[in-house]
Amino acid sequence: MNIKENTQKLKKLQETMHAYKHALGLLYYDAVTGAPKKTTASRGATMGVLSEVEFKLMTEQDNINLVNEINENSSDYDAQTAREALVLKRDFDKISKIPMQEYIDFQLLVNESDDIWHTAKENNDYELFKPYLKRLIDTSIKMTKYYDSNKDPYDVMLDEYEKGYSVKDLDPYFESLKENLLPLIQKIAAEPKPDTSFLNKSYPVEKQRILSDKLMEIMGIDRNHCAISETEHPFTIDFSKYDVRITTHYYEKMLASSIYSVIHEGGHGLYELNTADELQYGTLANGCSMGLHESQSRFYENIIGRSKSFVHILLPILNDLFPEQLEGIDEEKLYKALNKSEPSLIRIEADELTYSIHVMIRYEMEKMLISGNLSVDDAPKAWNELYKKYLGVDVPDNAHGILQDSHWASASFGYFPTYSLGSAYGVQILSAMKKDIPVWDLVENGEIPKITSWLSEHIHKYGRMYDPKDMLYKACGEKFNPDSYFNYLKDKFTKIYNL
Amino acid sequence: MNIKENTQKLKKLQETMHAYKHALGLLYYDAVTGAPKKTTASRGATMGVLSEVEFKLMTEQDNINLVNEINENSSDYDAQTAREALVLKRDFDKISKIPMQEYIDFQLLVNESDDIWHTAKENNDYELFKPYLKRLIDTSIKMTKYYDSNKDPYDVMLDEYEKGYSVKDLDPYFESLKENLLPLIQKIAAEPKPDTSFLNKSYPVEKQRILSDKLMEIMGIDRNHCAISETEHPFTIDFSKYDVRITTHYYEKMLASSIYSVIHEGGHGLYELNTADELQYGTLANGCSMGLHESQSRFYENIIGRSKSFVHILLPILNDLFPEQLEGIDEEKLYKALNKSEPSLIRIEADELTYSIHVMIRYEMEKMLISGNLSVDDAPKAWNELYKKYLGVDVPDNAHGILQDSHWASASFGYFPTYSLGSAYGVQILSAMKKDIPVWDLVENGEIPKITSWLSEHIHKYGRMYDPKDMLYKACGEKFNPDSYFNYLKDKFTKIYNL
Repeated sequence: MNIKENTQKLKKLQETMHAYKHALGLLYYDAVTGAPKKTTASRGATMGVLSEVEFKLMTEQDNINLVNEINENSSDYDAQTAREALVLKRDFDKISKIPMQEYIDFQLLVNESDDIWHTAKENNDYELFKPYLKRLIDTSIKMTKYYDSNKDPYDVMLDEYEKGYSVKDLDPYFESLKENLLPLIQKIAAEPKPDTSFLNKSYPVEKQRILSDKLMEIMGIDRNHCAISETEHPFTIDFSKYDVRITTHYYEKMLASSIYSVIHEGGHGLYELNTADELQYGTLANGCSMGLHESQSRFYENIIGRSKSFVHILLPILNDLFPEQLEGIDEEKLYKALNKSEPSLIRIEADELTYSIHVMIRYEMEKMLISGNLSVDDAPKAWNELYKKYLGVDVPDNAHGILQDSHWASASFGYFPTYSLGSAYGVQILSAMKKDIPVWDLVENGEIPKITSWLSEHIHKYGRMYDPKDMLYKACGEKFNPDSYFNYLKDKFTKIYNL
Repeated sequence: MNIKENTQKLKKLQETMHAYKHALGLLYYDAVTGAPKKTTASRGATMGVLSEVEFKLMTEQDNINLVNEINENSSDYDAQTAREALVLKRDFDKISKIPMQEYIDFQLLVNESDDIWHTAKENNDYELFKPYLKRLIDTSIKMTKYYDSNKDPYDVMLDEYEKGYSVKDLDPYFESLKENLLPLIQKIAAEPKPDTSFLNKSYPVEKQRILSDKLMEIMGIDRNHCAISETEHPFTIDFSKYDVRITTHYYEKMLASSIYSVIHEGGHGLYELNTADELQYGTLANGCSMGLHESQSRFYENIIGRSKSFVHILLPILNDLFPEQLEGIDEEKLYKALNKSEPSLIRIEADELTYSIHVMIRYEMEKMLISGNLSVDDAPKAWNELYKKYLGVDVPDNAHGILQDSHWASASFGYFPTYSLGSAYGVQILSAMKKDIPVWDLVENGEIPKITSWLSEHIHKYGRMYDPKDMLYKACGEKFNPDSYFNYLKDKFTKIYNL
């Protein structure tokens, strides 16, 4: 058993796997950015071939043996190699249980469904998407049975996106969230709203593009390694820490939309840009977990981006680009407008206070859909009822309701809760950070990169070296506790609304 | 020997090869469109892995055996399968002679060199590019020795891009071209020039983008299967007939530049869009040869795009978009301006008459560089001297000289002559076409798709079913004969300049 040889073999295997991931990732990125519309089938042919190889790499006996051997003797290996073998073993164990053709078909289904979803959302046509949603749910459940037939399918899915979390963690979390936030949300809903009309004046897209560049500059994002493009639904993808892509969507009459998409995706981007060099092209290169990733994106978006200190540096930039539209707007007015809390329809446009309620609705929907207690026929009605129940809003159509998010179209069931967990992690991380650096002074002085350095040092650089619960403990010196998140929101919004 | 089984195996092999070609093609396309600047190394890692697999597919004994067996019994197979096996055998025979690591290193060198060339051109820095050019030449020569050590390296390269052509064909061709065209070019150089100043007014890029859409519409290009994007050097790439990409480059003060890039690349695009469905994902899907491909692009660009009939439909479109810039311009003025012939510096901006001289200069350069009669140190000087000798122009710097084209940066030595051959093929094809359809009436009536139908029926649909000499004979009913090309140019330009 040659340790050095095994270490090199594992490195080579990961580099090979990375190449396929890169190619498949780029095919996806291209599909939603530059590709002509009717190219799904053509792309699918290629994705089928590459996915098959990806599958084979993860199920080849030689590779399984290698990973098992390193795992069984992990103390003989360096920490990174040992961790890589552990993470790979988890993936291999799962995937090797799926028949190859089913795995490939699933990738093709996801590819096709994403395309259908785009059309369905555009045309407000849930019926078009419905049979795909049904197949996506059924196939996803089938997959969880292969993984672990003893566990509840939804718990398997949750664990997929946030290792160590299950309904047992999330039910009390969302229960406590409801108790803590719903009364405040309802109180604020009855209050007079700050003026936000100036944010809905006409902001030419050409100038919004310049604003995006400026925001990325303030965030210290290295444009030599990070590009921005435009898609229906903003997202971040990385092909390595050296090649990160973020996307946004410009609405001429919604200035705040792209600003906060760019800052949010920029937060994801910074996580990737700052993972350690030595982790690149390996399985540990892509951030600890979805929740930790969201903690970063939402940290920049809300905690930093919607703070008084950030408004102080944002306003002059906006005034430069849009002097007419913003005439008479001071920091106070901008701060209040950007933090207007109001029960609303669209998750990605939601304010910081109500955001987690949008997530909770999806969590409840997923629990019902996956358990079979809700059919895809009844799903839009259930969606609309939950929005009425918790947020008091009437959903006018499915494009503004159940069709708004892309996640289910890519079979990402169990993903949504990580958005809310991430928000809560973020505040816990802020508390720890404040012990070391003067966060708000740094923001006001335009020194966000110093905040990023703290995050890089405590979180980013580690990539996927730790599981989320361990990572959070390592970064904050305490276990996950959402109380600081609830208190932060109550404090911030009580002040804004003078309650 | 099961014929059906072998046929299916060959199909599967080609689909697999196609997937890697697609992925590698997309990595390249992405590199020159959306990718951040400093991503070459990261992309190279992936390209290395995928190229290695591509190489292995072409050198695997099972695949070689399959291809050989079909070739040896080709009459037992359907025509497409037999031809596919023949074309694959040619590629396999070549590539199997190259040591794998050298093949991969060459791909990486090309990837890196293309990147360096972009920077070198941008900064007018030949010294930066020079060592790469040297390595590209040396490695390309080394490759030809593997292929066929008995043949002259440059002949091997020429055959690579235009099967069946060698210096023996091209020396007399360019000799005849010189005799036929240089006297006319020199005569016209002494004549007063038509006014073209209006083409260099300010044409906002935003509106030029709309013009591109309009041009693609007139050409009948199906946007569901063909996208346009922007790059330093315009090109066309296809991932299948269902997914074609063309690119252009907008210059605010050069209206004609992007117009003719779009029409040229659109011509390439139409070739791909119209190959037969049954050839897709196989080795015959991508057009007969470089020369035939150029015959199509230059047919649309020059024969159609710079005709009086096309000017008749172009002017109203331009007037709609740029009424102020084009005030007082009539069809006659526009036609003459778009056909101004003048010895100049940049190949892709050159007029139809002088264009082949630009190509000839590159042909002469390549002959010298590949034979070792010219060093990369002396290459810029030689380039400038040839421009002085044939076109009478002084090259002010290398960005406008030897660095202007991307071809050598991707080791495409022997590619340039196909541009001139293609121009000549195009006129021969026009003569054949005119016997069947009223070409100029169709253009004037905006019925270019009917012309495309003729081309699809006689050329496009066949893909790579025939070698270029056979394809041309099949389409035109005669062997290659450049006289009609020379006569066409003499006739057209004598009239324009009233000589």
